[in-house]
Amino acid sequence: MQTVAALIFPDFELLDLFGPLEMFGMLPEHFAIRLVAERERHVASAQGPVSRADDLFADDLFANGRSCDILLLPGGPGTRREVNNPALLDWLRAQAEGAAYVASVCTGSALLARAGLLDGRTATSNKQAFAWVQAQGPRVDWQARARWVEDGRFFTSSGVSAGIDMSLALIARLHGEARARQVAAWAEYDWHSDPGWDPFAELHGLV
Amino acid sequence: MQTVAALIFPDFELLDLFGPLEMFGMLPEHFAIRLVAERERHVASAQGPVSRADDLFADDLFANGRSCDILLLPGGPGTRREVNNPALLDWLRAQAEGAAYVASVCTGSALLARAGLLDGRTATSNKQAFAWVQAQGPRVDWQARARWVEDGRFFTSSGVSAGIDMSLALIARLHGEARARQVAAWAEYDWHSDPGWDPFAELHGLV
Repeated sequence: MQTVAALIFPDFELLDLFGPLEMFGMLPEHFAIRLVAERERHVASAQGPVSRADDLFADDLFANGRSCDILLLPGGPGTRREVNNPALLDWLRAQAEGAAYVASVCTGSALLARAGLLDGRTATSNKQAFAWVQAQGPRVDWQARARWVEDGRFFTSSGVSAGIDMSLALIARLHGEARARQVAAWAEYDWHSDPGWDPFAELHGLV
Repeated sequence: MQTVAALIFPDFELLDLFGPLEMFGMLPEHFAIRLVAERERHVASAQGPVSRADDLFADDLFANGRSCDILLLPGGPGTRREVNNPALLDWLRAQAEGAAYVASVCTGSALLARAGLLDGRTATSNKQAFAWVQAQGPRVDWQARARWVEDGRFFTSSGVSAGIDMSLALIARLHGEARARQVAAWAEYDWHSDPGWDPFAELHGLV
């Protein structure tokens, strides 16, 4: 059983978070999901709906240097503020050190970049916010045309719905492609399983 | 401005709810989103994460016979219990009477069926749970092969991710197809805009 710790912060993007969690949640025998927030337990998304964190940074789950197995970071307009939040970046660095996998959706990769966790790695992000995200990590090899990018234990995806495709790829890495295809079928989801599929890079003028 | 009231109940399915709300949430100039629950403000999804309702059935939003503009019903394992909840079915009937549109995702259509709201109408649902959903509404013309079905002001979609495609179709009905395509592009989502596209009916042995 692996713990998926999903970070929430004010103005996170709904589908960035709940698309991947739906996929992991289809396999409760493998994944236990926890929502994590810094200090306030109730966190409003950019679209309005409020989620309740299961754990705060100071809680037991993360005490004494323990870390989650899979760290998931959504994006959303709140990342514009959180890239300047030292407590959050410190927590990310500590968690990422022990996690088996670190995954981000959309502008969530800007948080990883500002924490220095993507230096020297390849990564991607939301295609409309690409220039801003690039500026958060000048030593990152940013890939403009990619549905998602895998670099070792770091998975970064493009905007919003791309997190679903990426999380299926992570499930495939851990439990085989047949299992990932079964999860997609249960969700009646047309998985774009080729990480190079990305019409949005061109649509948003990046290539 | 239209109010989208999205019903949550214990063991609702995460993506059924938050896929459509992401799409409506992209147009805050047109849609205000409210999560609604029967009596308990905090509601756990089938996958674990807890949402907080903005309104309860007894709250002002629905007092004195007022109703929302768009009623959205997710599915999930909790529908197996809620089809036998008279208070919830009564609320659905009252809200559906005044709403401009009523939309369901996945087994959410079982709730509409048991409330009698789909009698004589065409509708669809999750493909794996299809037989059970059909049994909830013997006077409904259930369509096995359909990504979603529109019957007047009632929109019903297939399982889980199909709600995203359906909500884009509802946005297209209200604000034009160009606007719906723009929302899909912002979400970097490959909209299946043909309601007849449904490989899952065959995959799950229904046709």
